[in-house]
Order: sequence, then C-alpha cells, then structure tokens
Amino acid sequence: MSPSLLYTYLAIKLILLRSWPNYLNYSSSWNKVFSEWRPNNSPKLMDLLDDTVPGIGTYEDFNTIDWVREKSKDRDRHREIANKSKQSTVALLFSISDAFSGWLLMLLIGLMSGALAGGIDIAAHWMTDLKEGVCLNGFWFNHEHCCWASNETTFQERDKCPQWKSWAELMVGVSEGPGLYVVNYFMYVCWALLFAFLAVILVRAFAPYACGSGIPEIKTILSGFIIRGYLGKWTLIIKTITLVLAVSSGLSLGKEGPLVHVACCCANILCHFFTKYRRNEAKKREVLSAASAVGVSVAFGAPIGGVLFSLEEVSYYFPLKTLWRSFFAALVAAFTLRSINPFGNSRLVLFYVEFHTPWHLLELIPFVLLGIFGGLWGAFFIRANIAWCRLRKNTSLGHYPVLEVVVVTLLTALLAFPIEYTKMSSSELISELFNDCGLLDSSKLCGYTSNSGSTSGSVNATAANGLGARLAGPGLYTAMWQLALALVLKMVFTVVTFGMKVPSGLFIPSMAVGAIAGRLLGVCMEQLAIRHHERDIFRGWCSPGADCITPGLYAMVGAAACLGGVTRMTVSLVVIMFELTGGLEYIVPLMAAAMTSKWVADALGRESIYEAHIRLNGYPFLEAKEEFRHKTLATDVMRPRRGDPPVSVLTESGMTVEEVERLIADTTYSGFPVVISQQSPRLVGFVLRRDLVISLENARRHQEGVVSMSPILFTECDPPMSPSAPPAVKLRSILDLSPFTVTVHTAMEIVVDIFRKLGLRQCLVIQNGRLLGIITKKDILKHMAQMANRDPDSILFN
Amino acid sequence: MSPSLLYTYLAIKLILLRSWPNYLNYSSSWNKVFSEWRPNNSPKLMDLLDDTVPGIGTYEDFNTIDWVREKSKDRDRHREIANKSKQSTVALLFSISDAFSGWLLMLLIGLMSGALAGGIDIAAHWMTDLKEGVCLNGFWFNHEHCCWASNETTFQERDKCPQWKSWAELMVGVSEGPGLYVVNYFMYVCWALLFAFLAVILVRAFAPYACGSGIPEIKTILSGFIIRGYLGKWTLIIKTITLVLAVSSGLSLGKEGPLVHVACCCANILCHFFTKYRRNEAKKREVLSAASAVGVSVAFGAPIGGVLFSLEEVSYYFPLKTLWRSFFAALVAAFTLRSINPFGNSRLVLFYVEFHTPWHLLELIPFVLLGIFGGLWGAFFIRANIAWCRLRKNTSLGHYPVLEVVVVTLLTALLAFPIEYTKMSSSELISELFNDCGLLDSSKLCGYTSNSGSTSGSVNATAANGLGARLAGPGLYTAMWQLALALVLKMVFTVVTFGMKVPSGLFIPSMAVGAIAGRLLGVCMEQLAIRHHERDIFRGWCSPGADCITPGLYAMVGAAACLGGVTRMTVSLVVIMFELTGGLEYIVPLMAAAMTSKWVADALGRESIYEAHIRLNGYPFLEAKEEFRHKTLATDVMRPRRGDPPVSVLTESGMTVEEVERLIADTTYSGFPVVISQQSPRLVGFVLRRDLVISLENARRHQEGVVSMSPILFTECDPPMSPSAPPAVKLRSILDLSPFTVTVHTAMEIVVDIFRKLGLRQCLVIQNGRLLGIITKKDILKHMAQMANRDPDSILFN
Repeated sequence: MSPSLLYTYLAIKLILLRSWPNYLNYSSSWNKVFSEWRPNNSPKLMDLLDDTVPGIGTYEDFNTIDWVREKSKDRDRHREIANKSKQSTVALLFSISDAFSGWLLMLLIGLMSGALAGGIDIAAHWMTDLKEGVCLNGFWFNHEHCCWASNETTFQERDKCPQWKSWAELMVGVSEGPGLYVVNYFMYVCWALLFAFLAVILVRAFAPYACGSGIPEIKTILSGFIIRGYLGKWTLIIKTITLVLAVSSGLSLGKEGPLVHVACCCANILCHFFTKYRRNEAKKREVLSAASAVGVSVAFGAPIGGVLFSLEEVSYYFPLKTLWRSFFAALVAAFTLRSINPFGNSRLVLFYVEFHTPWHLLELIPFVLLGIFGGLWGAFFIRANIAWCRLRKNTSLGHYPVLEVVVVTLLTALLAFPIEYTKMSSSELISELFNDCGLLDSSKLCGYTSNSGSTSGSVNATAANGLGARLAGPGLYTAMWQLALALVLKMVFTVVTFGMKVPSGLFIPSMAVGAIAGRLLGVCMEQLAIRHHERDIFRGWCSPGADCITPGLYAMVGAAACLGGVTRMTVSLVVIMFELTGGLEYIVPLMAAAMTSKWVADALGRESIYEAHIRLNGYPFLEAKEEFRHKTLATDVMRPRRGDPPVSVLTESGMTVEEVERLIADTTYSGFPVVISQQSPRLVGFVLRRDLVISLENARRHQEGVVSMSPILFTECDPPMSPSAPPAVKLRSILDLSPFTVTVHTAMEIVVDIFRKLGLRQCLVIQNGRLLGIITKKDILKHMAQMANRDPDSILFN
Repeated sequence: MSPSLLYTYLAIKLILLRSWPNYLNYSSSWNKVFSEWRPNNSPKLMDLLDDTVPGIGTYEDFNTIDWVREKSKDRDRHREIANKSKQSTVALLFSISDAFSGWLLMLLIGLMSGALAGGIDIAAHWMTDLKEGVCLNGFWFNHEHCCWASNETTFQERDKCPQWKSWAELMVGVSEGPGLYVVNYFMYVCWALLFAFLAVILVRAFAPYACGSGIPEIKTILSGFIIRGYLGKWTLIIKTITLVLAVSSGLSLGKEGPLVHVACCCANILCHFFTKYRRNEAKKREVLSAASAVGVSVAFGAPIGGVLFSLEEVSYYFPLKTLWRSFFAALVAAFTLRSINPFGNSRLVLFYVEFHTPWHLLELIPFVLLGIFGGLWGAFFIRANIAWCRLRKNTSLGHYPVLEVVVVTLLTALLAFPIEYTKMSSSELISELFNDCGLLDSSKLCGYTSNSGSTSGSVNATAANGLGARLAGPGLYTAMWQLALALVLKMVFTVVTFGMKVPSGLFIPSMAVGAIAGRLLGVCMEQLAIRHHERDIFRGWCSPGADCITPGLYAMVGAAACLGGVTRMTVSLVVIMFELTGGLEYIVPLMAAAMTSKWVADALGRESIYEAHIRLNGYPFLEAKEEFRHKTLATDVMRPRRGDPPVSVLTESGMTVEEVERLIADTTYSGFPVVISQQSPRLVGFVLRRDLVISLENARRHQEGVVSMSPILFTECDPPMSPSAPPAVKLRSILDLSPFTVTVHTAMEIVVDIFRKLGLRQCLVIQNGRLLGIITKKDILKHMAQMANRDPDSILFN
C-alpha cells in the first residue's frame, strides 16, 4: 500500500471512529495512544496496542487469514471477559450474554434464512406460473392457489379452473386450436427472456458477486480467504431477487447452491451486530459454516443432511461446538420455512415422497447401473462445464454476459415449451418423477393400460388387481419418448447454464437428469418384470397382486447418483435423500448408487465441480480431503530456491527506519523473518508486512523525533545508545515470537498437514537452528499443482 | 526394557517369524539385513530398515503412538504400491484390492457385529424370561415365542398361555395364592444371583478387560494409546457371554456401551487379516472409529446416529473418508441385525415408536423442565458414581469384586421383584413408557377411567369420545406410585452398578430414569389439561375429541435429557432419538431438552461420565473438545524446569556406545534430542529411546567389531577416522530429522492445539535456534490438570 493511500485510509478510519457511536470505546483508547505512545512488552499494553492501532491485526482484501492468530485473539478476549466477570455483577451478566450470543445469532440466522427461503419459494412459484397465464381473482395467486379458491374445480382436473386464464385466452380470446398454442408459446418465451434479462442486468449493475452458485467461493472463504463484499448486503438483496427471476425464467438451474450463499450473507450481516463475531475472522467462519448447513436445510428440508453437507463439503474448520450450533440453526430455519408453508402441504420441499413397497436384493443391479450412469454424467458434466467456462474466459464470449444469458434463455425456452417435462419447472419435474403412481394420478407417467383409478401404491388396492394393471399403455410410451428427449436437453443446457452471470445452482438440474434416467430405467425394469413374471428370476419377487418395482424409487436413486457424481458428496447426500423419503429402508439402494457413482467419477477425474471451479478461478484453497502423497521435502518447496539470493530478513537490532522502508519498497513479501544478525541467521520471530508498514507510518507521524536514521529495535531490552542518537522505534509488540518452523528435512506431506490442520499462512524453514527459507500457502498450492500434473494417477486409489 | 528381556523378546519374535507363513516376506528381508547391514540414508534402504529391524516403529504396552510417524508410514506404503502398480498387472490388481480392502473390512465388521448383536439380543431376551418360568414346548423358547406358537392365547392376554409355566407352577404345582408368589420370588432371585455370579467369575478368570462399558478405554485407545489385549479375542468372547448374563440378571445396566466395545473387538480382530491395518496403528484407529459407530448403530438401530456418536463422542482422528466408511459399516450392521430380527417385529430395537399427535408450543415449558431434571441427574450421577468408584478403589471394597456383584444383585433382585416396573427389563420398561396408549393396551399405564378399548392414539377413534376418556383411573394411580418408587430404585442402583466388574452400559439405565420421570410429568400434564380444559391456556390446544398431550413423548424427551446429562452428547443424541421416532416433528422438543440438560449439567461439572472415568483411571487422554484458555507459555511447561540441570541430549558425533548406553540406563525419558554439540546445542533431530535401545542391541550382536568405545554417528557423512579405531555405529536411519519445535514464547494454548491436531507425543522447545527443553503429552496433561484445579470456573462458559 503506498503512503498516500495509507493516509487516506487512516483519515477515513479516523472519521469513522469519531462519528460512529459503536466505536466509542475504540476512539477513547485511541486518544490514549496518541498521548502516551510508549510501546513496551507488558502483556496488558500489548493487548491494548493490538486493539487500538487501526489496521494491525486486520486483513486486506484477497488475503488469507492467520487462523492461529485469530483463535488466540478470541481466547484473549474470552479470558478478559472471564476475569472481569469475577469483579462485578454487570460484568458477569455481560459474560453470560456473551456466552449465549452465539445461540442468539444462530436463532436469528435460522429465522432470517428460513423466511427468505420461504419468500423465494413462493415468488418463484408464482412467477413460474406467470409465464403461462394469470389468475383473474388476483394476479398475485399462482395457478394452484387460484384454482384452490375456485369451487368449479373437479378433483380429477385440479389444474383447470375458469379463474385461471392462459395468456392466449386473455389476449386474443382463443381457447383452442393452434392459435392458442402459438400465442402461449410466444408469451412463455417473452416472459422467460424478460426474467433472465432482468436477472443478468441486476447482477451486473449492483452485485457482480451474486452470480453463480456461490459454493466454490464460500468454500474458499471458509478456508480463510477474504473476499470483501462477497457476503455483503447488496449481494444478499440482489441474489435473492435475481434467484427468483432466474429460477422463474425456466433456465436449467436450481436454487439450492444460491440458498447456501443467501444464508451465508444473512450470517455475515447478522455477525455485524455481535462484537465477538464482527472482530474475529475465525469466529465469523464458524458462523458461516453453520449458515451453509442452514442453506441446505431450507433447500431440501433436511436439517441433519445440511449439517453433514457443511461438515463434509463446505467447511474447513468445524469444531464440535459448531456442529451442535449448526444443527440448531438448521432446525430453526426448517421450522420457520415450514410455518411459512410455501407449498401448501406443510412439507419443506416439493419432492418429499413416501414409498411403501420394499425393494428386492436383485434390484441392486439396476441401482448400481444408475450409479455408473451418475458417475459418468458427473465426470462428463465437470469436464464439459469447465471447458465451456474456460472458453468463456479466454474468448470474446466473456465480454457479452448479458447477450449470453439472453441467447441461452431463448434457446432453452424455445426448446423447452413443446415438451411437457422440460416446460414444467425442474423441481416439479423431480416431484413427478419421484412420485409413485397413486390412486388418482392423471400424469402420463402413470398411463398404464388399465389405469382406471386402481393401481395404487397401497397393498390393499393392488391386491385386487392382477399384474396386468401395470402394463404400459400409450400414455406411458409417449411419456417415455418425451422423457428421453428431455434428458438430452437437460444435459446440454445444464452444461452451458452453470457459470453464467445469473445465480445458478446445480443440485436440481443434476437431480433432474438423474431422476429422468432413473425413471426410464425403472419403467423398463417394471415392464420387463411384468412381461416375464413367470420367469424364475422374477417369480419370488413379483407375486401377482403386488407392486414389485417402484419406478419412483429408481428416479430417486438416479437423482442421488447424478448429484453424487457432480458434487462427490457421500454421507450428506445419502442423509439428504433419506430425509426426503423418511424411510431407513431405502438407504441401501441410495448408498449403493452413491458409492458406485463416486468411484466411477473419481476414476475419471478427481475433482468435484466445486473444486474444479475453485481451480478455474485460481482461489488459494488447500483441499482438506485429499492427502498429499509425494515424497518431496520442505527444502524442495521453500523460497529462496537453490542458487537464489538468501531470504530477505530483518535483524532484531541494527537496522534503521530507512533500511526497513527500502526493504519494504523493494520486495512484495507479505512478511519478514527477524533474525539475530545477518551473520548468525538464528530465528527470533516473524513480522507481517502490513503490520510493519502501519507501525512505521504511525511512528513517523506520531512519535517525536523519528527520522530515517532512527534505529528499529525488535529486542526485549534496549541496547545502550548515545543520547544524541535519534529515538529508536520499538516494534517488539508487532513481532510474532512463536512463528511456526519446520526443518529442511521435513516431508512435504507433513508440512501440508500442518498447514491444513493449523490454518497457517506461512512457515519458516530452519536447519540446525539457522533460518534457511520460508514456505507460504501459495508455495504449497503451486507445488501441489505441479506434482499433480506430473503424476496425475497417483491419487486414484486413496 | 532390560537387555535380557529384550533378548527373549527378539528370540520369540524370530521363532514367530520363521514359523508363521504370513511373515514370510518379513523373514526373507530380515535375512537380507543380516547379510548386508550397511546403513545409509538412501530412502529405499531406509524404508527397508524401518520394516525389517523388528521392534523399530512399534510401541510398547501403555504407550502413546506417534500419529505423524504412523501416517507417514502409511503414505510410504501407499506410494510403494502405487509405484509398483505401474510395472505389472499383478501389482495393479494388488493395488486395487488394497484400495478396496478397507471396504471389505467394513463389510465384515458390519456383518460380524450385527450377527453378534442379534445373538446377544435373543439370548438376553430368553434368559431374562428364564428367571420367571420355562416353556413346555421347548426350553429354548422365550415367553413371547412360546405363547405365539400356542393357539390358546387370546389377543387381550397375549402373555398368558398354558405352555408357559412359571417356576412355582412347575416345581410345587401351585398356580395361585401367596405360595406361587414366594416360590417365583425365590427363583427369580436365585437365577439373578446365578447369572451375575457367572458373569463376574468369567470376567475375573478369563478377561479382566471385559468389565465396564469400555467407552472410556476406547476413547483413550482412539486418541493414540496402546492397551494390549483390550480389544483381543478373549475380551470379545467373554464380554459377549457375560454381557448376556449381566443383562439377564436384572442388574441396572444396559448393553449399549458394551456393544461398542464388542464391535471394536470385532474390528481389531478382523484387522489382523489385512496387512494395511495390522501394521499401522493410525489406520487401525480409523477402523476402530467406524466400529464404534457400528456399535451404536446396532444398539439403537440408528446408523446415522451411530456415525455422529463416533464423530462427536468417541473418535479423535476422524477424516471424512472414515465418515463414509463408518456409515457403510453401520448400515451393514443394522441390516444384518434386522435380518436376524431379534424382536420378531422387523424393528432393530424394542422401543421404536410412532407418535401421531402434534405437540403444542407451550409444552416446551415441561420439556425444558425435563431438560433441567436430566442435567441435574447427570451431574448427580457422575459425582455419586465417581465417589463410589473412588471408594471402591481406595478401600478394601475393591478386593472383593465378586462379593460386591453378588450383594448388589441380591439387593436389586429382592427390591425389584415386587414392583412391576423394576421387575421387567429396562428396555421393556422404556418401550412401555414410550408407548402411547393404543386401542388394545392392557398396561396399567393406560388405566384411564373409561378405557374400554377406545382411547386410541389415532384421531378417528378418539374423535368419538369426550375428553373424559383420558381421565386417570385407579390403574393409572397405582402405576404412578409404582413408577415413582421405581425411579428412586433405578437411580440408586444405577449409581452403584456402573463400574462393577461385569459388562455394564449406562445408556439404558439413564434413559429409564429419564423415561420414568418424563412419563410421570406427562401424565400429570395430561390430567391437568383434561381437568382444566376450559381454561384459556388449554383451550386452543386441547379441543374436545382429540388427544392433546402424549405422555409417551414426555417419556422420550425425559430419556433424551437424562442420557444427555450423563454423556453430554448433543447432535448424536438428538439424531439417535430422531431415528427411534422417525418424525422430524419431534426433533424440537428433543433438542430443547438436550440443550437444557447439557447446559445445566455443564454448569455443575464439566466432565461427562466417560471423561470422569478416564481421569479416575489416569489414562493419558487429551480432550479434543475443550479449549485450553490459560495464558501460560511453553517455557512454563517444558522440562527441564528453571534451575534444573539442562536437558539430556545426544550429540550428532563424538559419543561412544558406552556413553549412550549409560545415558539410557540413567534416565527414563522416552526419547532424546540430538544436537550438534554440547557447546552449541542446536537441534539436529530426535531419536526414540526404544529405537535406540533396539538398534544398539542389534549393532552389538550383529555388526562386527562394535565395542563399548565405538563411536555413534548421527551425521550424514562420515568424519575422518583412523583405521585402527573401532567401527562406528551409524544411526542416522533411526533419527527423526524433522522433530516438531516451538519457541519458548509460544502460548500453551497453541502448543495444546498442535498436540491435539497433529497427535504428537513430544515437542522440542527452542529459543533463537538453541535447544532449551522438551514438552511431552504427559507434561501437557499434568499442566492442564494443574490449571483446571487452580481456576475451576474458567471454562464454565465456552
């Protein structure tokens, strides 16, 4: 940071300090520092200094936090509160309120996210229907609500009622024939274009960070990276609005990933009201971990699955305390959403199902096949999507994000309208595919030959019928062809949609692909079993009079497999699906498919879509799941490399302000080791560049007599000095006296482990007590990428 | 270890090596070492040496493992397989089979544990009934099965049939009157005494480690401690048999904790068949973590809950890969158990329930009260039980374990028989308390005034009745008194039973206490609501014609609260309970109670029963959950203390065999730092005592010309030596060149964090490159205990 920039920064900070009452305690001790700037190393004043020189202990944008320092800061804070609490009742009450503030924060996040998710569901539902028509009773009713209120609706044709008018009926008055179709087609495309256009324009104008799913960035942020504004209030507002628009536009995208982002924004904003979390980046990340659990909880109505998703997929530092709090927040959010009741059925999601027929052991074969399909789809999707995103990044395509969205929406709408299964929203499609054909199903998927309201899932009803009741009729054949077509379209559009400049999740599209494939296979299996029920293989299983195969279960297994292939989730995936069905019975098929899918996908490429996007965007993310297995040593990775000049160091005494400033100006390192002397490079400590710059500026401005020739001292006691010499700048208070060190012989696998587990930014390399070099997180990431490129197969079987 | 002992050890090992074909590859490379003993530091030979000098890299009993070293060993092994797999197809197949061996192991553990759990359930059920009578159709039928087969059983009196004879009927022929009662009483007590006596005798004679719940020890083992035989085959056999005996004897104990121990024994035994796991203590612990999930899964039929229990409560090192495998194993075990069907109802546990009535928001008040009760009970139980165990340990009581068991069993049986609710087994009691009064319930707990087969849980049946149908009748009043009495008895007996020399879990007794308290409160609430249903507070809630309060739910909430108070489980507790009920609906009451219970219990004492027992037994367990919050530095903890002589070190050259042997004989340290020279104590590496002893013995025996005056070299290149000098013993291969170091200024909170997260045994303390001291895990535990005693409140609010 240049001095003039720094000056501006300090000036703004000062104005803020004076004007913002929240910072009052801050500004008073600030005055104290002005008047009695006497650095020494008594712990009391050190604490004060850490707090009061603005900037020290904070991070710049796009920087990595130091977990160890943040956690120490929190422990110091806690210790202070605990000590004070013994002195007065007020302080005791404060300490209790401080202890419970975490729970309060979780409650608020749960309530806010649940409410937002409910709002998004309702709005998206309404706007999706708006593409087709409008309700005469009030334009704010969606199709279903409009016809609920009507008493002219019959039970069979629940979705037809005179109050609901399609656009053709309303605008040109036709109610039949090709004219109706063409006008409706035109209006559908127009609305879709309008929604998508609005979404991309809003994102571009107000919150560029609101695009995409957000999960790759949240993973990076949780691992300790700082992206200012990514979780801010503008992102929240714009993402909420544009998510509704994007979902309603009929693009092949879902709201699950963005809901995680929305929940994290809520958490980040609410953190501002709690000093404990506002001022500590590590504590804030605990809250964000819980918020991602909340996001999945409201997306799938699966609180336990959400917590496991956060643990398995998103979080980096996840202490057990956070597990418990996440669960609480996820539960609160789920109940808030349920009391909003966005689907009118007191369920949290559109596609909750209950199956009743048990599955047969032999069915594991098709389930494993679905797993293989899911794995192949996952691997294909990741490669194709990354290739497409790279194309967008490297060619001029990337300069026209609005045009891209409009064109993709146009194509999607044009191709989607003619096919029933692509015209409906993806979650409705999934809901229909998961559903077992019930007593009163009028869906084409239940178009069996003798479907006269008798083929029910309950044993009583089917017991009366023969197996013939499940033979495919013409309705089902049509449905099959349409589904096959929908499968291809969904696959293509999902690949090009994910990564566009609108909010877009890929849980729902992935699940839709899998559900279609699963349903297709399920129906085939069913017909096979019925037509050959006398064969040995089916005899013990498809006894006449009972349903023997549930195509809905196949759809569900396929959805799990495809989602697993794309995201590489394991336990959380199975638990989310389990929470959707509510039966322990179906865990085994889900698990078989999820396992196969993960193995197949991992064999074809080891990154999940999120990790692939993290790498595409070059975020400094140290994957915690994969072990580093190469036999390199710290000495191979540390800088300076062999032959380079030795590492830039400061000495604990003997350097002047000018020399240090020149070193800062000449280098771009984010920190400098402090050694005893250049001749005897034995390590004393480590000082961060940012802290050094701020302290020097501060000393030059506010400490009397500091000139370029003033010595800089990191020592504990002052060396003897002539009285005429300029006063020394004492900087021991910003020196980290316990930097992490490894030896040159330390295996890189251990170094990587230390970085991951302790959340380091850098680590010093010593040999026999002498400082030889430094390893930063970036060095490690670069080295890991190199090794992975050199030997791509080595992590195949872990 | 003295030289003679070591010699014996080596001789035995050698015989084993020669006789056991499994070790063939071992013995061949062993010969190679004999013939070409040329230590140098090329990585290839180092690997070989690590493998082949027997003893190096293994641990003694009651020692802590070095996680970093074990994980490095596994990575080396993996790397070797991966490299070989590129050379031949056989090696590739081997590498694939190696990769899947983990899954195979999990499958086997699941099958074996599920089968054992099923066997234990069936045997315990039968033997519990044997205390009351015998089946004439075959003595191997339990009461229920005996009467199932009978066609003279009416539906109302399912448990009365002519084939089942009580002992009085069989022995003295009476079927009524006080004679019957007395003889049955006598037989009940006799059988109970016989079972308990057999159990304690078997434990004493064959497997002393089979007593207790096993969870404290498993926690310690998982944290890296070695207790040989704790998970051996004798422990498995004896624990399985005595668990059945102990449960059947009617003592106030459960089988859940011991099932975890049984599953871990299975895992440990099965590990022997897989080289990957047999030879690596860290990998073995991953498997054991999964096994504890399996144990809970079969105990409660809750696979997800089991995995979370393992994660939250038991495990120390739990990578995500283990999470997924644990889940697989837990699922396999649950399905194995279900296919054995020990309860004849295709449920995994006796107390699976389904409630149908929703709960009212105001009911949270009694639920929180139950939480408070649970917390109080937990704190009381832990203190009382620890006091009792300490008494047993310190007085002569501990010398008569058999007598103790017999006396406690006698008292339990004598007092339990007269009361219906203590006479039945605890799990039956819980099952009855959880149950909502159904259509055909003949239990006294459903003794409502107009209970003529009409007060059903289903809405249809009750809709016909007024609220009067739920007014308490005389049956219910009797039941209440008996329950209150049972509550007191259970509380007292649970305190004295846990810790006796028989297998004893405390999940079931704790849950029973809570369930009784909950049911009592539930019935009170119900009667209150019914008698005052016209009051405002109950009006909106208890509309006539519908059940408004489910006493069974209160029992369940109470059980969760008490279990939470004792074990301090959080998420896993709620998830286990959720899996028992299967309804998301009831998570909120469970969560409210579990949270309150944990807060109350934590405020009264921060240790769970397992941690208290770990501390009582003095196991070296570094609790991962609690943060160390004191402001001490590494210099305050390291040895040598200020004023002590400097730390015992080896120098990298210049010491003779004799000097090193004297140092080993004079000290008891488990390892020695190696420095450049005594004058310049700059750190080179660290060598473990055990490795040093074995290497020196080995050199003396097998290397030609080694005498007491031979120099010992840890250096990389040989210093020049006169040709007449005795040959040097080169030990660089056993030197750890990358020991962990911290500086004297490092805060202890960071040191504790490093020890926990990396699983260290020791850490060296340096200042400005000079070695000053050493910190071991034991030093840290001692320091933590000191600080906790000095300032017990400081961790109250974390």
